[in-house]
Amino acid sequence: MTATPSATQHTVVYTVRVEFGDCDPARIVWFPNFFRWIDAASRHFFVECGVPPWHETEQTRGIIGTPLVDTHARFVKTASYGDTLQIHIHVAEWREKSFVQRYQVKRGNADGTSDLIMECDEVRIFAMRREDGKGIRALPIPADIKAMCS
Amino acid sequence: MTATPSATQHTVVYTVRVEFGDCDPARIVWFPNFFRWIDAASRHFFVECGVPPWHETEQTRGIIGTPLVDTHARFVKTASYGDTLQIHIHVAEWREKSFVQRYQVKRGNADGTSDLIMECDEVRIFAMRREDGKGIRALPIPADIKAMCS
Amino acid sequence: MTATPSATQHTVVYTVRVEFGDCDPARIVWFPNFFRWIDAASRHFFVECGVPPWHETEQTRGIIGTPLVDTHARFVKTASYGDTLQIHIHVAEWREKSFVQRYQVKRGNADGTSDLIMECDEVRIFAMRREDGKGIRALPIPADIKAMCS
Amino acid sequence: MTATPSATQHTVVYTVRVEFGDCDPARIVWFPNFFRWIDAASRHFFVECGVPPWHETEQTRGIIGTPLVDTHARFVKTASYGDTLQIHIHVAEWREKSFVQRYQVKRGNADGTSDLIMECDEVRIFAMRREDGKGIRALPIPADIKAMCS
Repeated sequence: MTATPSATQHTVVYTVRVEFGDCDPARIVWFPNFFRWIDAASRHFFVECGVPPWHETEQTRGIIGTPLVDTHARFVKTASYGDTLQIHIHVAEWREKSFVQRYQVKRGNADGTSDLIMECDEVRIFAMRREDGKGIRALPIPADIKAMCS
Repeated sequence: MTATPSATQHTVVYTVRVEFGDCDPARIVWFPNFFRWIDAASRHFFVECGVPPWHETEQTRGIIGTPLVDTHARFVKTASYGDTLQIHIHVAEWREKSFVQRYQVKRGNADGTSDLIMECDEVRIFAMRREDGKGIRALPIPADIKAMCS
Repeated sequence: MTATPSATQHTVVYTVRVEFGDCDPARIVWFPNFFRWIDAASRHFFVECGVPPWHETEQTRGIIGTPLVDTHARFVKTASYGDTLQIHIHVAEWREKSFVQRYQVKRGNADGTSDLIMECDEVRIFAMRREDGKGIRALPIPADIKAMCS
Repeated sequence: MTATPSATQHTVVYTVRVEFGDCDPARIVWFPNFFRWIDAASRHFFVECGVPPWHETEQTRGIIGTPLVDTHARFVKTASYGDTLQIHIHVAEWREKSFVQRYQVKRGNADGTSDLIMECDEVRIFAMRREDGKGIRALPIPADIKAMCS
């Protein structure tokens, strides 16, 4: 098995309303909230691709979820309450035992264009519990899930 | 066993620093954050009273924690980042199968006085899992824990 | 002007998806998150009733928002991630200088019925800044906003 | 002025208690909470170095804060409630109009060693409001603040 660096075209969009309480005294989104939304978007991506929920895959094949290993985010424009944001999600790269999930957070304008607010690349793994009960370990990327998400 | 409405004198103080991100565009603490701190203060009260952590009591006697049934809060003054708050916690009332945990959130002044920021009364129970596996149920107040916390 | 304790019939529904990160190690919604959603629901109620956003009313008539004075919540059933919740909001009572905003958080079942998850009564005021620049004060309930929300 | 890539030795430590509500159904810290703590740690670094609070520097010299441009985090070990974490903060690089603030989140062990939980590099700027009132712009790194923080 080799790494598969080519980008997939399967993109899911997750919509977020920015609320008053998501913003800080500078009247803009307090940045940890973007990661809150991105984590939800990550799960929705798999649900939308038809992957069963993790509590089900844990029973059927030991996959307990996709823990985060590394995240890299770039903040381009600010957002504030009243804004509606679209998070575009796809898998940018399948590696042997990890994958890169890419997010673009956009805000649509009245004229049909959209502004890029932030973008983020995450490295995640498919995890199962270790046989000795101590922690978790990364699985090789499951071929069927990769096919559903590509 | 009868309800015991008399107030206990055992009070624990839990200290909180208010951070920039705890505040909203009105530059004051966004109120759900008070409940975040109060939940932490509730647990610290029991730890300070010498009650073992819930994951330990779950093993030894089935008590999984003290879920919240009802909460009533009154907001008196605002707080903002840079403030240090003291949460004074005690059990105001022991009932047969529930108890009232009372919180006063204060901010000390330079002259030694303090301002009341908010106060909150919570009704909580000692919970164990139901024998049929469906949800939880309230236990009679454990006499030893009551003694430790009074 | 006298207090008007009769309940209004104008109800707005605000929908919330419960995410993984909203839940605690007991696998249920960590309760401060309910207040996060309720605060958002409060603002949506006014928006849905046609009241301009507060940054606009601040310019036109000095109303900066509806700060919370008192909240009382009762937790009935637990919710977890994957659930979709409907928050039903109405004004239960108009007083002279405050009002009671009432929330019922429900989860719909497959058979068309719904479960009550929690309910909450909040006392809020319409606030403007004090003339001396020190803090805020409560306004008499604005008749036009009351009419829009009743 | 040229970029100054050499690492500073001035390190500040910010301590965090992990609470129950900071953890998710996997019983570990839900990762957006690390960014919440890191943002607080960033501000504490400047306070500990003797830099006046931003609301003061805004009055005296127009500096409104240090907005985040880019963040890159690596998650090494998990943490859970009951843990106390130490966030070690220093400026790893001073550039012309931005700087790299580096964080190492550690958990001390009973034997005096410590485990690395996560580490994070942030690119931040010193910001002032634009003269035309539209948004903010980056200032050249202030020499006095750089001296205080190095």
